[in-house]
Amino acid sequence: MQTVFMKKPIIYADHAATTALSFRALEAMKPFLTEDYTNPSTLYHAARASRKAVASAREQIADSIGALPEEIRFTSCGTEADNWALKGIAFQHFNQRKRIITSAIEHHAILRSCDFLRRVGCEILYLPVDSRGIVAPDALESAMTKESALLVSVMMANNEIGTIEPVSQLADIAHHYGALFHTDAVQAVGHIPLNVRELGIDMLSASAHKFNGPKGVGFLYVRKGIAMEPLLHGGGQEMGLRAGTENVAGIVGMAAALSEHMETLDKDRQQLELLRALLLSRLKDSAIRFRVNGSENHIPGSLSLSFHHAEGEMILHRLDLMGIAIATGSACNSKETVLSHVIQAIDVPESYAQGTIRISLGMDNNEEQVTEIASALIQVLSE
Amino acid sequence: MQTVFMKKPIIYADHAATTALSFRALEAMKPFLTEDYTNPSTLYHAARASRKAVASAREQIADSIGALPEEIRFTSCGTEADNWALKGIAFQHFNQRKRIITSAIEHHAILRSCDFLRRVGCEILYLPVDSRGIVAPDALESAMTKESALLVSVMMANNEIGTIEPVSQLADIAHHYGALFHTDAVQAVGHIPLNVRELGIDMLSASAHKFNGPKGVGFLYVRKGIAMEPLLHGGGQEMGLRAGTENVAGIVGMAAALSEHMETLDKDRQQLELLRALLLSRLKDSAIRFRVNGSENHIPGSLSLSFHHAEGEMILHRLDLMGIAIATGSACNSKETVLSHVIQAIDVPESYAQGTIRISLGMDNNEEQVTEIASALIQVLSE
Repeated sequence: MQTVFMKKPIIYADHAATTALSFRALEAMKPFLTEDYTNPSTLYHAARASRKAVASAREQIADSIGALPEEIRFTSCGTEADNWALKGIAFQHFNQRKRIITSAIEHHAILRSCDFLRRVGCEILYLPVDSRGIVAPDALESAMTKESALLVSVMMANNEIGTIEPVSQLADIAHHYGALFHTDAVQAVGHIPLNVRELGIDMLSASAHKFNGPKGVGFLYVRKGIAMEPLLHGGGQEMGLRAGTENVAGIVGMAAALSEHMETLDKDRQQLELLRALLLSRLKDSAIRFRVNGSENHIPGSLSLSFHHAEGEMILHRLDLMGIAIATGSACNSKETVLSHVIQAIDVPESYAQGTIRISLGMDNNEEQVTEIASALIQVLSE
Repeated sequence: MQTVFMKKPIIYADHAATTALSFRALEAMKPFLTEDYTNPSTLYHAARASRKAVASAREQIADSIGALPEEIRFTSCGTEADNWALKGIAFQHFNQRKRIITSAIEHHAILRSCDFLRRVGCEILYLPVDSRGIVAPDALESAMTKESALLVSVMMANNEIGTIEPVSQLADIAHHYGALFHTDAVQAVGHIPLNVRELGIDMLSASAHKFNGPKGVGFLYVRKGIAMEPLLHGGGQEMGLRAGTENVAGIVGMAAALSEHMETLDKDRQQLELLRALLLSRLKDSAIRFRVNGSENHIPGSLSLSFHHAEGEMILHRLDLMGIAIATGSACNSKETVLSHVIQAIDVPESYAQGTIRISLGMDNNEEQVTEIASALIQVLSE
């Protein structure tokens, strides 16, 4: 994948926050940012190309995740897709008693949607996770035997610690008890192979800018036959389910970026895991005390570290001064200084928890850069 | 305003559906589609430019409508802004009795949001309009004296017939009876001068691609101090009120396009009205029987015509074959073949109603093109 580089050369290791737009995606977008500005919902010939481009993007995306084109609904971001999945199902069953089961380490797009739904009459149950951040299928099973639920939503991969969840097993259990299963796959789509049919999931959220597509566009997969209330009511776009003039350039760019990722998925995973292992081995060779958070089964290149008696934000700022961009946790809540709900849920010991950072490598990183990140961390933490 | 032209040269007279991206907007967007791909919510220096760009766009947009920067909240489109305004206020007062007053000729983003809110417990009242499509302030006054309302939402200008509504008077009445006032200004922003303080409105929706900005971005103005439930729950973006990674390029492009429109607003209005008058005079000189829908006080360049014993869609397709792009009504509902709710509400006589088309001129149209549109209409309707 060819992408641009930052104007000011830095080492960018925050790919879980956002990624560079791929050249191929940008090239695909250009006609729809310039001479073809038609509204695809119009009836004249001039809009034929934009209509076709949206239809073709829908097919490309469906292909990438094993879905049918009509099961893909374009949204403005992963957050919108998450909000829609939960609220769309909850409001579809507005006058019934509604129970939604989710996990303690979901993205805030899920957790705060659940808070809202609780205020308007849903019951919400949060499944705990183990020290690796894994939701135990047994926990879901026992929650479901007590009382049935309308919907289970567990993320495919966590955005702070990279842990991949056993969504296939969880979906099986949900279905066994008559519930629908949604997964927030914002960190997973384009990074690990996934097939919605094989996994048996009913709904899946994704965001383009996490896989080198543009910001401001995402999609929700909804299995054929599932009825849900729109989140954005209005015009007849997206089969009458998501109103608003189609963001043609964004949709086309998202499809191009995802198709590009799919071509080199396995090769990229191996490369990213080599880089991650190199970084870890450098740190292990030093005298620094740290823990690796998350599971062995994680998003490629994702690395959550907790350093002993350190401050995550201090590390971030010191690395920033050295030209290295990393995160403490989720970018969406970077202004919050309290310990993240994910780090709390996986019970990181107090002496380590405050010293948590997230490094997320991408294909524009190389061995030299990773070595530099390790050296910078060792320097900052040895002072 | 300099914009690109269609690849295949056509006469584009559907500016109410969407507009070409201005060169200045595209230039403003480019850095954020290429080398500056940072997530503005991150904490490192590299993201400083994208953070500043979003802040500066917020100021530009606030300036254009007489608001404060912190009163501007970016959305993914006008539809999202409309949905948010209504649902945000309704859910903020979830446990109270809620009455919302709107008009019979609103965009579907409002009408279908109202349908949804009715299903979840709101009472909705629809104000009638006169034959020009104007909501009478008296009608609102008498509706409010009977029973108080939470919110009044009346559009600034209608998307099918261009009629400008007396929003300032309507807002005064709403406030007198303790209700908030929202206006869907998607067709108005960038096309007529408007100042939210002078108009005394509490909320206003806008969409970038209606004023030569990019598709996939819009904004909601919310007067300082008004509390509302988010529509997209999640991360802390947009002062914690609209979650989702900022569409930096889109936001910056929207601000550039709106600022550009503001510079030539009066000159453009005059030019568009000259073109519209020329088109009308050509038609009047012919033997064709038609009516002009809407009010004398309308969006510049907007022209809704109903032809006697004709079929709007037939006219559209015949003009399409002659290289002219017009609409029958709203693009968002172009697949619906029933008579539009707006044409029904203004009581167009039956012998004319089915023959309705919408011509919406823009600054890329000229006298020659307008003459050609008139000739084409005369030809098609004389056959």
